Amino acid sequence: MKLLNKYITFLLFISFNLITYSQITKDYDLWLQYTKTYIYNDLLKNISLDTNNETEKVIKSELELASLKMYGFKPKFTNTGNADLILKKNSELDSSQKNISEKVNKLNNEGFVIETIKNSGKQRIIISSKTSIGLLYGTFRLLRELQISPNKKEFNIIDEPKLKVRMLNHWDNLDGTIERGYAGNSLWNWQKLPELIDRRYIDYARANASVGINAVTLNNVNANALILTPYYLEKVKALADTFRPFGIKVYLTARFSAPIEIGNLKTADPLNTEVQQWWNEKTNEVYKYIPDFGGYLVKANSEGQPGPQNYGRNHVDGANMLAKVLKPHNGIVMWRAFVYSETDSSDRAKQAYREFVPYDGKFEENVLVQVKNGAIDFQPREPFHPIFGAMPQSKLMMEFQITQEYLGFSSHLVFLPKLYEEVLKSSTKNKEKENTVAQIISSRSNELSGIAGVANIGNDLNWTGHPFAQANWYSFGRLAWNPELNSEQIAKEWLQQTFSNNSDFVASISKMMIKSRESVVKYMTPLGLHHIMGTDHHYGPGPWVNNLARPEWNPVYYHKADKNGIGFDRTSIGSNALSQYSPEISQYFGDLKSCPEEYLLWFHHLPWDYKMKNDRTLWDNLGIKYQEGVNEVRNMIKIWNDSKKYIDTERHQEISQLLEIQLKEAIWWKDACMSYFQSISNLPYPKEMEIPIYSLEYYKSLKFPYAPGIKPHW
Amino acid sequence: MKLLNKYITFLLFISFNLITYSQITKDYDLWLQYTKTYIYNDLLKNISLDTNNETEKVIKSELELASLKMYGFKPKFTNTGNADLILKKNSELDSSQKNISEKVNKLNNEGFVIETIKNSGKQRIIISSKTSIGLLYGTFRLLRELQISPNKKEFNIIDEPKLKVRMLNHWDNLDGTIERGYAGNSLWNWQKLPELIDRRYIDYARANASVGINAVTLNNVNANALILTPYYLEKVKALADTFRPFGIKVYLTARFSAPIEIGNLKTADPLNTEVQQWWNEKTNEVYKYIPDFGGYLVKANSEGQPGPQNYGRNHVDGANMLAKVLKPHNGIVMWRAFVYSETDSSDRAKQAYREFVPYDGKFEENVLVQVKNGAIDFQPREPFHPIFGAMPQSKLMMEFQITQEYLGFSSHLVFLPKLYEEVLKSSTKNKEKENTVAQIISSRSNELSGIAGVANIGNDLNWTGHPFAQANWYSFGRLAWNPELNSEQIAKEWLQQTFSNNSDFVASISKMMIKSRESVVKYMTPLGLHHIMGTDHHYGPGPWVNNLARPEWNPVYYHKADKNGIGFDRTSIGSNALSQYSPEISQYFGDLKSCPEEYLLWFHHLPWDYKMKNDRTLWDNLGIKYQEGVNEVRNMIKIWNDSKKYIDTERHQEISQLLEIQLKEAIWWKDACMSYFQSISNLPYPKEMEIPIYSLEYYKSLKFPYAPGIKPHW
Repeated sequence: MKLLNKYITFLLFISFNLITYSQITKDYDLWLQYTKTYIYNDLLKNISLDTNNETEKVIKSELELASLKMYGFKPKFTNTGNADLILKKNSELDSSQKNISEKVNKLNNEGFVIETIKNSGKQRIIISSKTSIGLLYGTFRLLRELQISPNKKEFNIIDEPKLKVRMLNHWDNLDGTIERGYAGNSLWNWQKLPELIDRRYIDYARANASVGINAVTLNNVNANALILTPYYLEKVKALADTFRPFGIKVYLTARFSAPIEIGNLKTADPLNTEVQQWWNEKTNEVYKYIPDFGGYLVKANSEGQPGPQNYGRNHVDGANMLAKVLKPHNGIVMWRAFVYSETDSSDRAKQAYREFVPYDGKFEENVLVQVKNGAIDFQPREPFHPIFGAMPQSKLMMEFQITQEYLGFSSHLVFLPKLYEEVLKSSTKNKEKENTVAQIISSRSNELSGIAGVANIGNDLNWTGHPFAQANWYSFGRLAWNPELNSEQIAKEWLQQTFSNNSDFVASISKMMIKSRESVVKYMTPLGLHHIMGTDHHYGPGPWVNNLARPEWNPVYYHKADKNGIGFDRTSIGSNALSQYSPEISQYFGDLKSCPEEYLLWFHHLPWDYKMKNDRTLWDNLGIKYQEGVNEVRNMIKIWNDSKKYIDTERHQEISQLLEIQLKEAIWWKDACMSYFQSISNLPYPKEMEIPIYSLEYYKSLKFPYAPGIKPHW
Repeated sequence: MKLLNKYITFLLFISFNLITYSQITKDYDLWLQYTKTYIYNDLLKNISLDTNNETEKVIKSELELASLKMYGFKPKFTNTGNADLILKKNSELDSSQKNISEKVNKLNNEGFVIETIKNSGKQRIIISSKTSIGLLYGTFRLLRELQISPNKKEFNIIDEPKLKVRMLNHWDNLDGTIERGYAGNSLWNWQKLPELIDRRYIDYARANASVGINAVTLNNVNANALILTPYYLEKVKALADTFRPFGIKVYLTARFSAPIEIGNLKTADPLNTEVQQWWNEKTNEVYKYIPDFGGYLVKANSEGQPGPQNYGRNHVDGANMLAKVLKPHNGIVMWRAFVYSETDSSDRAKQAYREFVPYDGKFEENVLVQVKNGAIDFQPREPFHPIFGAMPQSKLMMEFQITQEYLGFSSHLVFLPKLYEEVLKSSTKNKEKENTVAQIISSRSNELSGIAGVANIGNDLNWTGHPFAQANWYSFGRLAWNPELNSEQIAKEWLQQTFSNNSDFVASISKMMIKSRESVVKYMTPLGLHHIMGTDHHYGPGPWVNNLARPEWNPVYYHKADKNGIGFDRTSIGSNALSQYSPEISQYFGDLKSCPEEYLLWFHHLPWDYKMKNDRTLWDNLGIKYQEGVNEVRNMIKIWNDSKKYIDTERHQEISQLLEIQLKEAIWWKDACMSYFQSISNLPYPKEMEIPIYSLEYYKSLKFPYAPGIKPHW
């Protein structure tokens, strides 16, 4: 048998090499690689598991897949207590496992306990939870642990999600395009639904469940009412049925004018009883298709979308009207706070707060107000949104962007958890005891809390356009589960599952990932600059743009560079947006002595020769930062080249090629922005900076009519 | 060792099972599955092959992949004459292999010989050709033989392509959409080119080379001039560089008005010297990027595309102007004959002939006139295009459609070679000795001949939206190589490579494939009906449509159903389109006694009570045919269910689900068309026919604003 085992090892080695000949699967398999380990592990040999429902069948098939890929064998599923791994709801645990049962009792429905017990001399693992979904989460957790620590045999894990709704927002259109999507087209093949259940749907659900994502809004916030017609609801139902065993609920965006567009009414006024009745009947109809439908996400009165203000009503009128029809079904409304008025010429950063804060405490209990992380729009760096500190009586939901609309699309390696973490850990300094953003979104209600990420997922073979963008999907899920997690830890565990457990590889590449977000800030919008990208497609630099219809669409509105200096004065002598923060925060950002240099030009307009901490001028520092960004990408390329030996050639090469794009575009950003700012400051470039390759006119002449992800103009 | 071998077999079995856990690869791997065989074969153990160029490296890696997957070992590459397989250009064969060399000498550059020789008691295989590309084709041929006939050890194959340009036309737009594409978006990721060489590009090239496709037009015939700007040419070059080792040349569509749109000229008049100079310089520039660029494909003065007629010039003026600038580079022009005038109200079927035949013999020698298989537009069935019999002095290129614009998109299983074969084998009965369509397109010139297929390929995991649509890509390539091939033979070899070598499986499923084309004709457009689909998107039935701006866009124009009867009279008392055929053909189709019932309503307008061969009325036969189409789909489902045991669950289930869509839509076609025709004929449905489920008003009310593949409206 020993000889046989040796041959097995040898031949499995061959066979695992063979798998790499299916060149596309590593990219496709995300962080669920279940890479072959040569460490023998019999934890999954005999498994006790009921398979009474679809979720439990999912658990079984995941354990089979993982075991076969990691260890080369299929587990035996038994029902005896004699198994190596026992999965049981706490109601089914026997009296000897009372202490586990007690631990589970203290957890919420999605929480789980994984514990190693010794019983008649044998060591076993028990996963327990109140629900089958909890068992599924526990299974994925165990499989993660086995991949990260192949030698580990003793487990003592208690975990539960801190947020109730952990959601992906897909900005997918019915024509298959994705607004701000950079990884191909929509996963949802509306044409072939409901009959065709694409294998992708299942693998998408597995990936989500593995990190605890339990909610998906299928369609764009710039909504199309047709999604609420029977033709589409039948298709939505097929997706909901597919996702249900994975603990994922389906949500839809509700176009506020749907009663007119598909209901033949003359108005969508939320106080009109016909309108209310229409939404009531429509919602009942939706629940007939999908009994556990999650609810509606609404973008109203923002960027041309219809809303209650069209009828002289307000956000509360609109949100509560929908909340009431959803309430009997336990559905929720997510009402977006990303609004800015077409007629308001004041600082755009101030408008959402002004529109929403007066309504604090007025929303129904099943309404979440969905607030973007910053007050402008998913910039490489923004200070946290002042609303988070200012609506203590409301349920606030975080909206992050996972898709890299403003961060180089899917060709730039940017690890976003650093950005998320920066916002989540920000203290609002409001009067509550728990006042970081993370605490505010997670602690206010046991009943309802949430976080949404705008998905970066499309039908590219690698799902996200860039293998490292998979890390952002993964990390969003992990932070949605627990907003207090550390981004470095997340980077490491993702690398271990996705690429390699080699400690040198993990150490150097996780460091590279952690630095990557600061690099993109430097080569795009250093020192607090923001919103200076190309018009419409948001591809590449466009700081010179000044011809768009509305002032706040123009980059020049945001950087306000003139011969005297640069930056947006949001202090009390400027737009006074700072007044929307608590006094401490306002003071902190408002005082040049305490304001971090990363936020300088976000809050201050300063002369070009303003002296900075390093004793160099603002102008020099601008050039130095842009150059640092470029240099850091060069360094990423070097680090990545050095990692060649640790991973498969295909993905290594793919990422190398993508890094070349990132370098090309980082240089482009530096050169285009600095050429433009130099044409205004008329100052010589700092010596540290490489002189731009082309003229400013060249950069201004570039056009990209077919850049991906452009917003549809309906 | 025997024990070891047994273990190897056993464990490789495990490992091959493991591969199926990478659920997506079977769909992705097309007909290049290289399925594990349990028949021991040492033909690929030791291989003698030079790897002096990129093509030879491709051969090497394909042999490695195939051998590893089929037999579980990597071949040893040696340079001794002692190998099991020897690949050598005929110039490098030694004197003992003179007879092989002589055979190769008689072949064209892409031809090859595969022969088993016995040498000092040992049996070896030699593949020889004049070129490396010929060796690549020989390699793919050998690998096909090994998959189809795993026991075969003796080879005696001489083969060469009958057509010079074997081309895919991609109707891909720069924004990533595909006109009439039903398998996702474009493969070409313009945003990330030239840096990112997507693994797909290589697998696409492998698939093409394996069936002998040697030419691809990357972009839509409804062309965008931007493709000819440096920004895109740099990207096109990257694709050309990737495809070159596989023997594939890149072509582009040339928008006739490009000199205005990207050249800043005021005209695109082909006789204007500035225009000529612009095209000359532009073409020289293209060749600087791509030294072996293939040439231009042009859609001119058709459906709104610009062309020479805009300047009072004709097709010859336009085509020859481009031909002259391409000539020094050995490039060619493919000038499409698919034209119909915006102002000509006569039978659309007659217009292309009238526009082109007068120019017979006037085109430059490097011009191919690209003619669609029929005179209308890729219908489920059309008689062959009369141009094929009428331009003996011109080089005619066939244009087939592989993408199923009018055949149920990618949810209908339709094996197209039956359609291709029907056209290729048609005799034009013109005065030439070789006068079938196949002979006409292949025999006129050793220098230049061609066939194009409008690709059905997109970025779906399975490439073509339907696993059986892969067969149409495969078969197009095989028929392009040899237009005389038999479609049944092609179906069988495709099944063997793609699914299973099991003879019961191959027999029953190939029969199903062969029947499938007639089924789609029956449930969509039986008895010679045509062009009665939904407006614009061409999805589903729309025989009632009569409100489009131009008469020949309306289905009612094509079926001409009224209370007296149905059909388009193209005899001498009708539009006389028949006069465009040779007298025998005209007589054959024109005489009701000889006209095959499949073409009846294409050429004749007949009363509803017209008695057909089965002694039933035309009306009854219409209903019977529609019903037969539906019944045949039901039978396909039964046959497919019975094949479950032969193939992998994933693909079996995927195809089952797609067949459900096909059945649903076949019933929809029957019900909608028969409801409509019944509203005109006022006759009772024949007893064989199932009564329509819904009312005619219901079918007319259906709207599909987001059906895939809609033509862009630029």
